[in-house]
Amino acid sequence: MDLAEFIQSMPLLDHHCHYLISADVKDREERLAQVSTEADNNYPIEDTKNRLAWWSFKEEAKNFYKKDDQNFLQPFTRQEYIEYNHSIFKRYNYQMLLIDTGFVPANPITSITETQEITGVTVRTIYRIETHAETWMQKEADFETWWKALENDVASAKENGFVGFKSIAAYRFGLRLKKVTIENAREAFTNWKESGSTRLTDAVLICFILWNLAPILVEQKMPLQFHVGYGDADTDMFEGNPLLMRPFLNEWSVKGLIVVLLHCYPYHREAGYLASVFPNLYFDTSLINPLGTASVESVLDEALELAPYSRYLFASDASTYPEMYGVAARRFKEALSQHFAKLRNIPVEQKEQWIRMICYQTSTNLYLKARNDRKNEK
Amino acid sequence: MDLAEFIQSMPLLDHHCHYLISADVKDREERLAQVSTEADNNYPIEDTKNRLAWWSFKEEAKNFYKKDDQNFLQPFTRQEYIEYNHSIFKRYNYQMLLIDTGFVPANPITSITETQEITGVTVRTIYRIETHAETWMQKEADFETWWKALENDVASAKENGFVGFKSIAAYRFGLRLKKVTIENAREAFTNWKESGSTRLTDAVLICFILWNLAPILVEQKMPLQFHVGYGDADTDMFEGNPLLMRPFLNEWSVKGLIVVLLHCYPYHREAGYLASVFPNLYFDTSLINPLGTASVESVLDEALELAPYSRYLFASDASTYPEMYGVAARRFKEALSQHFAKLRNIPVEQKEQWIRMICYQTSTNLYLKARNDRKNEK
Amino acid sequence: MDLAEFIQSMPLLDHHCHYLISADVKDREERLAQVSTEADNNYPIEDTKNRLAWWSFKEEAKNFYKKDDQNFLQPFTRQEYIEYNHSIFKRYNYQMLLIDTGFVPANPITSITETQEITGVTVRTIYRIETHAETWMQKEADFETWWKALENDVASAKENGFVGFKSIAAYRFGLRLKKVTIENAREAFTNWKESGSTRLTDAVLICFILWNLAPILVEQKMPLQFHVGYGDADTDMFEGNPLLMRPFLNEWSVKGLIVVLLHCYPYHREAGYLASVFPNLYFDTSLINPLGTASVESVLDEALELAPYSRYLFASDASTYPEMYGVAARRFKEALSQHFAKLRNIPVEQKEQWIRMICYQTSTNLYLKARNDRKNEK
Repeated sequence: MDLAEFIQSMPLLDHHCHYLISADVKDREERLAQVSTEADNNYPIEDTKNRLAWWSFKEEAKNFYKKDDQNFLQPFTRQEYIEYNHSIFKRYNYQMLLIDTGFVPANPITSITETQEITGVTVRTIYRIETHAETWMQKEADFETWWKALENDVASAKENGFVGFKSIAAYRFGLRLKKVTIENAREAFTNWKESGSTRLTDAVLICFILWNLAPILVEQKMPLQFHVGYGDADTDMFEGNPLLMRPFLNEWSVKGLIVVLLHCYPYHREAGYLASVFPNLYFDTSLINPLGTASVESVLDEALELAPYSRYLFASDASTYPEMYGVAARRFKEALSQHFAKLRNIPVEQKEQWIRMICYQTSTNLYLKARNDRKNEK
Repeated sequence: MDLAEFIQSMPLLDHHCHYLISADVKDREERLAQVSTEADNNYPIEDTKNRLAWWSFKEEAKNFYKKDDQNFLQPFTRQEYIEYNHSIFKRYNYQMLLIDTGFVPANPITSITETQEITGVTVRTIYRIETHAETWMQKEADFETWWKALENDVASAKENGFVGFKSIAAYRFGLRLKKVTIENAREAFTNWKESGSTRLTDAVLICFILWNLAPILVEQKMPLQFHVGYGDADTDMFEGNPLLMRPFLNEWSVKGLIVVLLHCYPYHREAGYLASVFPNLYFDTSLINPLGTASVESVLDEALELAPYSRYLFASDASTYPEMYGVAARRFKEALSQHFAKLRNIPVEQKEQWIRMICYQTSTNLYLKARNDRKNEK
Repeated sequence: MDLAEFIQSMPLLDHHCHYLISADVKDREERLAQVSTEADNNYPIEDTKNRLAWWSFKEEAKNFYKKDDQNFLQPFTRQEYIEYNHSIFKRYNYQMLLIDTGFVPANPITSITETQEITGVTVRTIYRIETHAETWMQKEADFETWWKALENDVASAKENGFVGFKSIAAYRFGLRLKKVTIENAREAFTNWKESGSTRLTDAVLICFILWNLAPILVEQKMPLQFHVGYGDADTDMFEGNPLLMRPFLNEWSVKGLIVVLLHCYPYHREAGYLASVFPNLYFDTSLINPLGTASVESVLDEALELAPYSRYLFASDASTYPEMYGVAARRFKEALSQHFAKLRNIPVEQKEQWIRMICYQTSTNLYLKARNDRKNEK
């Protein structure tokens, strides 16, 4: 078996993705086009259809839709949808999806059991911190009770089935995370509570939350994901540069917090550098895998210029329809094959070990095993 | 006809370029060398001649100069210059030049009629906002009359033959455009007027101008170009990152302002991202086309990682001599051929449509047709 | 002789590197692994061994260690070490090392004579400004005597055998260098003196030092190197962007200060741009040469998109063991061969001239000849 076949056969643990939607959604073509871009729905659909991602999504649909090779974007019956999904997830050997439950598309399938049945893939969930902080703000009267409730919720997340956490600070103010005082946090909470808005955007409060939940995550040995770089028009990408996280990383990486930087583009070189100098820091180039289909190989190459192979992870950041997971996996596996084919003077066994790490092994260790266990295995 | 030939045959609408200079300029070699770089004239000419751009410019001159293949950088008679220019502009199928009239090189040909005669190409003009604001400051006594004059001038730009606007905010303070109050603008104007300098550099005043001219441009359906990234030593490239334009884009893109980001390097990935999420946003990688001749293909590939093909435009940013327009077109068409040759599973008709859009069609729609007309065409 | 052979035969002047360590260090494998990364020693060694650099270092050791091709990472006798070092430095035609004496690894060989004997290569030294400022702070009682001592030391550096200077401002606060007042500098000095720390981190004081030593360096025609971009976890890479040096370059480049930007990754495109518009500005992509072994070619290509070939220099930034110098030279020479093989329509004599400039000639001119001499040579 050559290396490309070995990579094709690799199981995938997708450590960052989202919900699928229902089989019977009527405007399937429009929904598939909309999820082929990070643009909002007020962005012209003609422009979206002039992106390569749309063409890759259509190609994927055409390849897997058996009933009609002209009209391959029709709504499904539940049974058809199950078969269609199974054929795609099986083709790329998806073994597990870690779903960030904090984002819910229209017409979602939010049931984990149902998602598992439809995809044929095991599902675990990721706890989005800001979303839960918002929910608890609506339930609790003051800062102290709110903070206690959030702390407890986070502390019991593992019991409640979550395998990791995610922060979308980059969507709310950016990544200049710093230590703040409890007095300032309390004041920020009060202002938020009185503002009438349920949306948490205050930098001080988000800093407080992350800085003070970090020890709990260290204790629980659970990873904290961060949205970094590429995302929808709602993120200020200048402030989403992971180099800005330095004070947070200086404090928490050495204390054992597992940090996972998601997406990272166009800061994937910066993320690779951080992974090469900070302990406990991991990253992926998800979202480019399905949405930047012409550049998956060059972005992967750049991400791996400095980073250890043991710090880089596969992820799709897909949602909505199986084509997005399919394109992400297909392009990622192709890029991985090309990357390793270019490496000279590395034994094939070493290449295979790195490929396993990237595709599923490192994520398995991070999200599914306690770190003590991992240490003992050595 | 294969795709490379198709691209060679494509008409070019160059939506961002500058004036040519006279036929009889004596130090033709020195002038050609100087325009092969963004450096000032105090930069050592030996270093400029150790850049690839200089070698590309020389090669271009040698290819088109028929009289003497050893001394091919001699001054021309007017008739020779016309023939020489025509041979170059015709070779690359230049159909139209949009000249930014705000920059005037030494020994310029500022007559549009004369430029058309010399090049054989139709010429239209772009209104540089800061330059006109400076002219009006010298004519008007106070903020109110100055602003009224500038507003009127902008509102009648279309009647006066202009097809678009350009801001060089990035050369004056950067791209952190924000909304400012009229009181602050009035104060900034008074300070400027009293300073004795005619040069407009005040951030508040430039923000005021752009924020308040935007509705007129929306009304007129005319594009607003921005200098972004790469330029001469006079620009602070750190502050020329287009991600910093987010507040301006959030306000105006959705209201219909057509924004065109010029040059963009080394922020062409950032520009491509913005084009993929903001409506009415277009960009080019001009200046790299003639001056970064070894990297035109990789920069074009990176620019198009996320952007729709319907948002990316050809431009040269050339000036002074026809070789610069020639090198820009030659390298751009080569890079475009290589880019599309790499794309798999895209029908040739679709590739041809995208190529037409990039070379002239999108610019024709933006600069030469009212947007209502374009909508009706669909 | 083809171009690749020509490049293999090129002498190398390594204008930025560090001390080697002793032959008999026991944990040779661990030390070699540690220097194959910029991570601190608390970074997991397993991750370091999952980086390509480690595999390149091992390959280099295996190629040159003749005694035992299984256990090729053993301590040496002095004589073995000399032969081993000579074989590596000779293989790549290293002619001179400029050692930054401000960084001292454990078990160093700090004797220049001994280093020359062990490597078979001529050694010259670079004066690290911040380190000397710290030494003088400990010796002098107040700002005035400290500043006078430092000034004198810098003014006599050439007599003391130094051929250039280096600033690590980027490791202390960043590259936003600006002009400060002597009053503020005096106050900063007093605070530092009273702080009990010998480490110089104050932005005002570092700005004062660099701004006020610059005229002496101009007078002495000696280059000033800056750490830029890539480095260990101790540098804030966001603040290490060379575009931030604009005020300093605007002031000093035109007055004749020779500035050399070291490493630069991931800002090598920015550095290339600066070299293309500022007089007296040079740069390298060292550190990537030995530590980013899969990307040396693409980084070199990007660095040279805009920069003159007369402004780009070879350097390794190596230290500790000869393998690091070896990998840097091997990968750099390979990348240079690939770069020049891709260039079309450039005469081979011109390519050879540029290759000579990059490998040793420009550095020879900058560090070893007074600029007046160079001017007279023309």
